[in-house]
Amino acid sequence: MTLARDSSPAISSQQQAAEQALTDTVVNSFDNAPNERLKQLLQGLTQHLHAFIREERLTEAEWNAAIEFLTQAGHITDEKRQEFILLSDVLGASMQTIAVNNEAYENATEATVFGPFFVDDAPQIPIGGDIAGGAPGQPCWVEGTVVGTNGAPVPGARIEVWEADEDGFYDVQYADDRVAGRAFLYSDDNGRFSFWGLTPTPYPIPHDGPVGRMLAAVGRSPMRASHLHFMITAPGKRTLVTHIFVQGDPLLASDSVFGVKESLVKNFEQQAAITPTPDGRDLSGATWSCVRFDVVLAPEGV
Amino acid sequence: MTLARDSSPAISSQQQAAEQALTDTVVNSFDNAPNERLKQLLQGLTQHLHAFIREERLTEAEWNAAIEFLTQAGHITDEKRQEFILLSDVLGASMQTIAVNNEAYENATEATVFGPFFVDDAPQIPIGGDIAGGAPGQPCWVEGTVVGTNGAPVPGARIEVWEADEDGFYDVQYADDRVAGRAFLYSDDNGRFSFWGLTPTPYPIPHDGPVGRMLAAVGRSPMRASHLHFMITAPGKRTLVTHIFVQGDPLLASDSVFGVKESLVKNFEQQAAITPTPDGRDLSGATWSCVRFDVVLAPEGV
Repeated sequence: MTLARDSSPAISSQQQAAEQALTDTVVNSFDNAPNERLKQLLQGLTQHLHAFIREERLTEAEWNAAIEFLTQAGHITDEKRQEFILLSDVLGASMQTIAVNNEAYENATEATVFGPFFVDDAPQIPIGGDIAGGAPGQPCWVEGTVVGTNGAPVPGARIEVWEADEDGFYDVQYADDRVAGRAFLYSDDNGRFSFWGLTPTPYPIPHDGPVGRMLAAVGRSPMRASHLHFMITAPGKRTLVTHIFVQGDPLLASDSVFGVKESLVKNFEQQAAITPTPDGRDLSGATWSCVRFDVVLAPEGV
Repeated sequence: MTLARDSSPAISSQQQAAEQALTDTVVNSFDNAPNERLKQLLQGLTQHLHAFIREERLTEAEWNAAIEFLTQAGHITDEKRQEFILLSDVLGASMQTIAVNNEAYENATEATVFGPFFVDDAPQIPIGGDIAGGAPGQPCWVEGTVVGTNGAPVPGARIEVWEADEDGFYDVQYADDRVAGRAFLYSDDNGRFSFWGLTPTPYPIPHDGPVGRMLAAVGRSPMRASHLHFMITAPGKRTLVTHIFVQGDPLLASDSVFGVKESLVKNFEQQAAITPTPDGRDLSGATWSCVRFDVVLAPEGV
């Protein structure tokens, strides 16, 4: 943890005492909160917020800039744009929250960031169905099994899948209300699943708002490593929110939201147009890819 | 500073290392920021944000609630309502920022919180003029001098004054565009000033939004101690943003934004209707009050 910076001007002990007294007063103002957890969270937040201001000697102009930043983030946020999630993402706060709630458990598949683009009304597809819904991109055959940490298949696991099209847009970013690039399906009696999606391509997080301007100001790219989103739920299992990433993607080392984990990088094998597809689908001469993603779900409550 | 709570479940060293590695990755992502100060602020913010999440073992539901809180704060914020300032105020972040930027200096008047209600287009009044502009409330004669820390008068100091009416509303909260309860004037050649205002009364900060709901959830009152706002600027002097508070106000100990400082509590002397006013103004039989506020400005740059 960062304590007072060496570069800080000397601060008199009287001043330090006054600043600490203010922090203590605010912390104590939550003492009578009836909800113990809320009290703990707000007291912890107060401690860190005050420590940040004191360590950095935040100027009033900087405080104003922070208020203006939050205001702009609030105003660009609507039903389809969530700038506060983007902010949490680019500060690694989303991934850190994932980390503390999804402690590595035996051989269970690792979690990664949820992102702002999930919508809870995707259509169901059968095993082997197509999630693309007309979204442009190279067809990609995805198959795998869902098992528990003991290796037993998990039948009937609900598998939500969503991804951007080859232009880098999720359907919620389209000007119309088309549903594309997302769907859900259930694993079969042997825990197996397969579907057609699109080979993931890199795209920038929405960067025409305050978060994008912040990234530009610090010389960070808004690009995300190519990925395909999964959320997998099954009775008695810990819900898994994750992605798979594309082996060889040069953005793996600089993902703008810190979502990459080595175990989630998969080999998306490129296939020539003449290679027969696994289910005999006619791709009208298009190239395609295929990837295997075997999922291991942790038990619930770990 | 709060470190890992005793109540936290044991966290494996492997898990701790993974969480720290993530924090380090995010901190390092700012290494190439061309602006050194911005880099330092964002790295410090990242350290504290991650430490908060890790110490509190923030749940995903709590993270969602935080995103929703910020979203609501953004949506209620407009030209006349600033929920992010209210949030900063009730967490004491505003006062802490004031504290680090207005270190006590000799006998200079202490600063306090700016608040969300200042508007930079108040009308000018002459010395002895009335700031009320028709706002309801008990008339209050305010007088004092502006001097430097060496005691020399500061002529021509610009004195901005603003306050709520007796119903607890600032003019920006009125349904129409009236300007009332605010004005500015200049100190005279001897640093003296005087004006008619309103005897301050207690009022709640706007509490029909997410900040108000948070205060209610933790059992904190939204009430502010009665006060009159000042912002005083003069060449070569540190700008002073402050209030004066009303001696005897029972809310002095529980001001919702932690703005009260003992040195700023003043004796607003209640006057009978028959007591002649200082400037001979006819108050049509109303009672009135008077208060003295002598201001000492620190030199610029301290």
